[in-house]
Amino acid sequence: MSAGWFRRRFLPGEPLPAPRPPGPRASPVPYQRPRFLRGSCSSPGAAEASRRPDSRPVRSPARGRALPWNAGYAEIINAEKSEFNEDQAACGKLCIRRCEFGAEEEWLTLCPEEFLTGHYWALFDGHGGPAAAILAANTLHSCLRRQLEAVVEGLVATRPPMHLSGRCICPSDPQFVEEKGIKAEDLVIGALESAFQECDEVIGRELEASGQVGGCTALVAVSLQGKLYVANAGDSRAILVRRDEIRPLSSEFTPETERQRIQQLAFVYPELLAGEFTRLEFPRRLKGDDLGQKVLFRDHHMRGWSYKRVDKSDLKYPLIHGQGRQARLLGTLAVSRGLGDHQLRVLDTNIQLKPFLLSVPQVTVLDVDQLELQEDDVVVMATDGLWDVLSNEQVAWLVRSFLPGNQEDPHRFLKLAQMLIHSTQGKEDGLTGEGQVSYDDVSVFVIPLHSQGQDSNGP
Amino acid sequence: MSAGWFRRRFLPGEPLPAPRPPGPRASPVPYQRPRFLRGSCSSPGAAEASRRPDSRPVRSPARGRALPWNAGYAEIINAEKSEFNEDQAACGKLCIRRCEFGAEEEWLTLCPEEFLTGHYWALFDGHGGPAAAILAANTLHSCLRRQLEAVVEGLVATRPPMHLSGRCICPSDPQFVEEKGIKAEDLVIGALESAFQECDEVIGRELEASGQVGGCTALVAVSLQGKLYVANAGDSRAILVRRDEIRPLSSEFTPETERQRIQQLAFVYPELLAGEFTRLEFPRRLKGDDLGQKVLFRDHHMRGWSYKRVDKSDLKYPLIHGQGRQARLLGTLAVSRGLGDHQLRVLDTNIQLKPFLLSVPQVTVLDVDQLELQEDDVVVMATDGLWDVLSNEQVAWLVRSFLPGNQEDPHRFLKLAQMLIHSTQGKEDGLTGEGQVSYDDVSVFVIPLHSQGQDSNGP
Repeated sequence: MSAGWFRRRFLPGEPLPAPRPPGPRASPVPYQRPRFLRGSCSSPGAAEASRRPDSRPVRSPARGRALPWNAGYAEIINAEKSEFNEDQAACGKLCIRRCEFGAEEEWLTLCPEEFLTGHYWALFDGHGGPAAAILAANTLHSCLRRQLEAVVEGLVATRPPMHLSGRCICPSDPQFVEEKGIKAEDLVIGALESAFQECDEVIGRELEASGQVGGCTALVAVSLQGKLYVANAGDSRAILVRRDEIRPLSSEFTPETERQRIQQLAFVYPELLAGEFTRLEFPRRLKGDDLGQKVLFRDHHMRGWSYKRVDKSDLKYPLIHGQGRQARLLGTLAVSRGLGDHQLRVLDTNIQLKPFLLSVPQVTVLDVDQLELQEDDVVVMATDGLWDVLSNEQVAWLVRSFLPGNQEDPHRFLKLAQMLIHSTQGKEDGLTGEGQVSYDDVSVFVIPLHSQGQDSNGP
Repeated sequence: MSAGWFRRRFLPGEPLPAPRPPGPRASPVPYQRPRFLRGSCSSPGAAEASRRPDSRPVRSPARGRALPWNAGYAEIINAEKSEFNEDQAACGKLCIRRCEFGAEEEWLTLCPEEFLTGHYWALFDGHGGPAAAILAANTLHSCLRRQLEAVVEGLVATRPPMHLSGRCICPSDPQFVEEKGIKAEDLVIGALESAFQECDEVIGRELEASGQVGGCTALVAVSLQGKLYVANAGDSRAILVRRDEIRPLSSEFTPETERQRIQQLAFVYPELLAGEFTRLEFPRRLKGDDLGQKVLFRDHHMRGWSYKRVDKSDLKYPLIHGQGRQARLLGTLAVSRGLGDHQLRVLDTNIQLKPFLLSVPQVTVLDVDQLELQEDDVVVMATDGLWDVLSNEQVAWLVRSFLPGNQEDPHRFLKLAQMLIHSTQGKEDGLTGEGQVSYDDVSVFVIPLHSQGQDSNGP
């Protein structure tokens, strides 16, 4: 299997900068040797040149011959947005050890062929510095592996057993599990949810210990046992692009999309706002002249709008302010889920952001084995910098324009990822129109699906 | 416009019972003369015979001639489930008075032609007695009219003004409203949300004053200004059936579908469970033998499943227990949204259900004016008794089998509603297969859409 990844932060019209030395990226976060490979390509074609510590060949289904992973450990480019690069990524093979029934606490180390294996891709878009994103890229896959290993006997059974030991205490245990509709994929979803939370705790401890700050979004795709799991906490996005279909595989979590959850929390715990913010949403920030008037507003229980008479407390700064890309939680943060931010406070106050943030991802499952896959069916994962400028349809158009004519090119997925980035700079066919250019970090994975089902060796 | 409504609780194989006198239904709830008509038909053809207090003719678009509303005040049949009938319904014309800019507190009584008019249908499925359902059928439309009248100047404007007075305090007020994407339909959604809450408060006060108990679900459809709004709090359902399309217009709110919200509340306020229940979900209730074992479970933040080691507190009765139609909140209630239940407690305890129940409906909007409507396009609204036995597809099949061949029959929508009820008794073409029969109350509205857009006289 071959996958293309490319990330870049451009200045409009600026030429591609040369790769920078790795020093500033790893420091000052304590460097942890990743168990999984982190892959990126600093320029077109760099994939071939990248180091290959993992020598196990992976079949390239589209071309029917063995190709090495183009997932070496390469430098990540940073242009201007932050001193250190705030986007980070990780990808690699996911090897889950099997545990036998009855040997609950004792792992059997099997030879690699007997591992349950999958593949893992992750994008982390940092804010307030790169520390959280780097920690997440170094940690999350380990958390996920641990969580999956803890439930592996449920993964390899037809249905997860009621008891992890496999023993039925109540004779109708299998029936209860079946009636609840619990399947192996629910254990993977649960493992992803737990892994994100565990990773968030690790990041919290590590940042506190090293006196650093910051947070990041996390978008993860895992291919396992014929299914593709997409877990998202933040405003990155993954879509499936096929010849006749564009299917969103994630939704974004921002102060706007999670308004009701956030307002509800402030309703339950008003002390979280320390009397400085109003929980209510208004079309704009209110001012003295609005006092006594009836104005449009929404509270936590409302999807629609109504009018209320303005009193003095409504003049406070709103819990969620602005709209679209400008929407901010407590005037500070543009996302409502992610990892880190344990120390983040509203400027010049003691008001914490963390209680409003969720580290739990939303997980969607794509049943790859049930799709009649074509060679050019891909999943595109990218940080918000891409989607600010390109719509799903524009990305799909680029995919469909590029792939069919380049089927012989072993690096076509990489080149497509690169082309997508270039398009955010207005360099490709004027797709973005009217000079729309992304000024944000942009990272892209293009993942071919054609043999995801066959590629994992689960039962 | 003509609509068919039918409700019935059968015993399998039992003949249609004769209508019962109205006494027990109205009593002991203090009877309130409804401002709107309550419509039902006790037997096929009864629509013609029903009283017509509203003499304003409504055009029957499908047949191009004026027909009276077949929404008289008729008797509701009750067979066996409860001493008094727990399903109630209401339908009628919704007349919203306009308020002029600047005359905020003073209503102008205009002649009927200048009213903003719509249509209203509602189904209430009661539990613990009919009291709450009767109060809701007598009250909710008044709450809704009041809420709509309070925002009517926003309804008739191109965009709702920032201020109810229509004056701009900040010159860019219209721009803020536009950027937030606030439209007239958001005010209707807000009015429906507020009306349900107001009605819930009225029911709470009335039941307490009269020493009665009970609750009900509420499913409401409102046709206004070319749109159909469907507001649902409970497990009734509305679907759109067209020649080539079946579109759900509501989703059900049960302890299962709202598991995460309910568990989250118990996580935030553990005192609500009084140490008697466990917030966690397991495939079955745990027992002593499970102690110390690792079993499947889910908590509030999890959509997937994981394993946990069972401790003593996990042996308590689960907050949500059972699956599918058997799922119960606190062992008591099968729905998680609705009106009433202010006094409802877990048997032999002081544990209240109400904190876990939402009265706020979910509202979906159908842009009727944008549909290329056919004469046989209908909305089917029904209480859970129908959907327990018939799938959306089976209902659509019956609609499509019946309507095209009966276009000349002015009572065809009524007859279709009746046929749907009969189908829950296994009397129609063996649709429900294997003797599936509904033992619950069943109420059905069949609403033709063909001229909903033209029928309201809004701007």
